[in-house]
Amino acid sequence: MDTKIPAAMAEPDMPLAQQLFEQLRSDNNALHGAAHGITRDTYGAGEQRAHELMASTARRLGLEVGTDAALNLYLTLPGRDRAAPVLMTGSHLDSVPRGGNYDGAAGVVAGLSVLAGWVAAGMQPQCDVTVMGVRAEESAWFPVSYIGSKSAFGLLGADALDILRLDTRRSLREHLAECGGRPAGIADGEAHLSAERIAGFLELHIEQGPVLVEAGEQVGIVTGICGSLRYRHAHVLGNYAHSGATPRSHRHDAVAALAEVIARLQQDWAQMEAQGHELTLTFGQVYTDAQQADISKVSGHVSFGVDVRSRSVDSLQCMERHLLDAVAAAERKHGVRFELGERTGSQPAHMDAALQDELQAAAEQLQLTHCRLPSGAGHDAALFANQGIPTAMLFIRNGNGSHNPDEAMALDDFAAGTRALAQVMAARAGLAAKA
Amino acid sequence: MDTKIPAAMAEPDMPLAQQLFEQLRSDNNALHGAAHGITRDTYGAGEQRAHELMASTARRLGLEVGTDAALNLYLTLPGRDRAAPVLMTGSHLDSVPRGGNYDGAAGVVAGLSVLAGWVAAGMQPQCDVTVMGVRAEESAWFPVSYIGSKSAFGLLGADALDILRLDTRRSLREHLAECGGRPAGIADGEAHLSAERIAGFLELHIEQGPVLVEAGEQVGIVTGICGSLRYRHAHVLGNYAHSGATPRSHRHDAVAALAEVIARLQQDWAQMEAQGHELTLTFGQVYTDAQQADISKVSGHVSFGVDVRSRSVDSLQCMERHLLDAVAAAERKHGVRFELGERTGSQPAHMDAALQDELQAAAEQLQLTHCRLPSGAGHDAALFANQGIPTAMLFIRNGNGSHNPDEAMALDDFAAGTRALAQVMAARAGLAAKA
Repeated sequence: MDTKIPAAMAEPDMPLAQQLFEQLRSDNNALHGAAHGITRDTYGAGEQRAHELMASTARRLGLEVGTDAALNLYLTLPGRDRAAPVLMTGSHLDSVPRGGNYDGAAGVVAGLSVLAGWVAAGMQPQCDVTVMGVRAEESAWFPVSYIGSKSAFGLLGADALDILRLDTRRSLREHLAECGGRPAGIADGEAHLSAERIAGFLELHIEQGPVLVEAGEQVGIVTGICGSLRYRHAHVLGNYAHSGATPRSHRHDAVAALAEVIARLQQDWAQMEAQGHELTLTFGQVYTDAQQADISKVSGHVSFGVDVRSRSVDSLQCMERHLLDAVAAAERKHGVRFELGERTGSQPAHMDAALQDELQAAAEQLQLTHCRLPSGAGHDAALFANQGIPTAMLFIRNGNGSHNPDEAMALDDFAAGTRALAQVMAARAGLAAKA
Repeated sequence: MDTKIPAAMAEPDMPLAQQLFEQLRSDNNALHGAAHGITRDTYGAGEQRAHELMASTARRLGLEVGTDAALNLYLTLPGRDRAAPVLMTGSHLDSVPRGGNYDGAAGVVAGLSVLAGWVAAGMQPQCDVTVMGVRAEESAWFPVSYIGSKSAFGLLGADALDILRLDTRRSLREHLAECGGRPAGIADGEAHLSAERIAGFLELHIEQGPVLVEAGEQVGIVTGICGSLRYRHAHVLGNYAHSGATPRSHRHDAVAALAEVIARLQQDWAQMEAQGHELTLTFGQVYTDAQQADISKVSGHVSFGVDVRSRSVDSLQCMERHLLDAVAAAERKHGVRFELGERTGSQPAHMDAALQDELQAAAEQLQLTHCRLPSGAGHDAALFANQGIPTAMLFIRNGNGSHNPDEAMALDDFAAGTRALAQVMAARAGLAAKA
C-alpha cells in the first residue's frame, strides 16, 4: 500500500463539517429550544433527525446509504475491491439530555468530511470505506451499554428489547419500532457486521475530561478504553428515628453508614493509585427519600449509585473487593443493610498498537500537539476492539467536559484532528486517484 | 398547701381520655383517610378540628374557654383565688404529616381528663388551672420553633408571619387569618401570658425515642430539654464532570466532600461523648440534584441538612466548631465550596428541680416504674422554662418512636402517667373539696 497520499489532495471538507454542526444545532433548537443545550434522545426525535441529516448528506455526496435492524447508519464510499474487508470510522449520533453538540456527532461529521474531501478530489479507496452513525450509545436513555454497536454484531440479545427508556417508560422495542427499526432482527441476533469483514475501526471523539486542555495538547491518541463496574440502584436500609430522642447507640443511620463507605473508599482509591492502579470511583447520585426524610429524623433509607472505571479488569475487581469490605464494615457498625442491587458494567478494551502509532505519525507530520491517554469514558470503539477488530480512537481537545451544554471544542482543533484521521484512513484504505 | 389529696377523690377521667383519642383519630380519618397515619396540619383543617374538639369538650365540662391572637387554646377551671398565679398544663395539638395520634395531643387530653376528674369529684383548686392547647409546635409545616408558645408570650415577631408553610407555600399570616386568628396581634407582640402570672407549667408527652421501652420504665421525668443547632438548607458546590474521564486530581466532587464531613463528625461525636458531652448529631437529608446528577457524573452539587441537639450550649458550640473544621478541611481537600446557609435553632432548657422531685414522688407513690432522662426533642415546655416559669415534663413510654403512624403508647401507661401528673397538679394548685 502506498501510504504517501499528498495531504492537499485529500483535504477533509471543513465547510461541510461546519454546516453539519450548525444544522445539528438548529435541528435540536427546533425540537427543544435553544436554552438547554442539545438533546438527541436515543430512538426519539432528536437522534432520528441527526440520522436523517447524515443520510441525506451522504446521498448528496453519492455514498451508499444503509441501515440494519437497530437502524445504525452505514454511509459507504465503495472501494475498487468491493470484496476486501471494509475500513470503518464513525461514532454515535445520540446525546445525553441537555448535553452538547459534539459528543458523538463529531466522529460522524469527521468521517463524512473525510469522504467528501476524497470524492471532491476524485480519489477512490482500494477497499470500501464506511462511516457508521451508531445508535443508542448514551446509556442516559436506556441503561445498557453499547446498544447500537452490539446490535450491529447481533450481540444485543432479545431481553434488552424490554428495557424501558428512563424518561418515557416505554420499551426499547416500542421506541425502535416507532423509528422504523426491526426488533425481530435484534431478537434473532441478526449480524450486519462481522469482525472478519472489517479491516479496522477508527473513532474520532471529543475528550470528555480536562486532560488535553490542561496539558495544552490538541489531540490525544487513546491507549485503551476503560471498562466499568456499576451498581446503579443501590440502597442502604436503616431505621427512621427522632433525631433528638434517639441516642447514638440506638441508631441505624443509613446516611452515616453510606458516608463512611464513601469516605473510606476515597482513601482506598488513593492507596490503589499509589500502588500503580489506574481507575476512577464515583458516587454521582445520593438521595434520601424525599417522602420520609426530615431534618429531625435519623435517615432510614438512602439510595445511591456507584461507578468504577478502569482499563484493567484487575483494578475493577480490586475496587469491588474494597467496596464490599467497606459495606460489610458499615453494616456491622451501624446495624443497617446495604442492597447493592444488580451489578452492570462493560469490558475494558485495548486500542491497536499499530493504529496508535500511525495516528501519532500523522499528528507529528501535521505538527499537531498530541499525547497518549486512556479513555475513562466508554465508547463504541471498545465493542469493536473486543470483537478482535484493529481499533483506535483520536480525542479532540475540548473544554468544560462533555454531557453538558458547555462543551467547547474549537473547530480548528477538530479540523486538525480530522486531517490526522484522514491520513491514517487514506493509508489504510489504499486511497488513490480514481481510475 | 395540703399535698395529701386522696388519689381516689381526684381520679382522672380515663373514659373521656379514650373517647378523645378515638375522636381525634376518626376526625383525622374523615379528613385524610385511615391509610397514612395522622395529619393535623398546623393552622389547617387537621389542627383546627382538634382544637374544636378540645374546646367543645371543655365547654361541656363547664370550663372557661379562651384563645389568643395565635389561636392557642386556654381551657380553665377557675380557682378559689382568681388573682393567684395560674397553674398550667398542656401540649400541642398539631402533628407532623403522616404522624401518630399521641405526639402532642396526649398532653392536652391528659390535662382535660385531670380537670374532668376534679369537676366530677366536686373539687376546686385554690388557683386557676389552665389546660393549654398550643398551636404550631411541629416545625414540619412552618420551619420555625415554638410558634404557638412564643406567640402566647408576645415573642414571635412580625417577620415570622411571612414564613411560608412548606406544603402550601402560603404564609403563616394567611393560614392564621383563615383559621380566625389575628396576625396583627402577633405583629404587635400582644402577650396573652406573662411569666409572673404563671405558677408552673407541666407537659405530659409521649417519649419519642426508645429509652423507656428498652429500660422497661413506664414514665420518664425529664431533666432538661435539648436546644438545637440546625443548618436546614446547606449545599456543597463542586463541578460536574465525566466520571470516567476526570482523574482524581482534577475533581471537585461534592458528594465525596460531604461524605468525608459526615464520616469525620461521626468520630468527633463519639469522642465528645467519651469526654462527657451529651448530644445528638443527625444528617437526615442528603440530596444530589435529580436534574443534573447521573451515575456517570462526578457530582457538582449536593444539598443536605444537619441537626445538632444538646441540653448544653457548650456542647452545641463544640460540635459546631467540629463541623466548621471538617467543612474547611473538605473544602481544601476537594476544591469545593460549602454554603451552610442560615443557622437556626433553639435554646436548651432546664426543668425545675422541685417539680421533678414531686413527679418522682408521685410516680413512687403510684408504684410506677420510672427514670429520669433528658428530652432530645424540643417541646413548648422549653419556651416556658426559659421564661423563668417552673416547668416540668413527664414522658410516657411509647414504642416505635414518634413522627410516624406506628406510635405505640399503651393506654394503661398513659393512665398511670396522668395519675402522677394529677397528683402533682392537685398539690401545686391546692385542690380541695368545693366550698
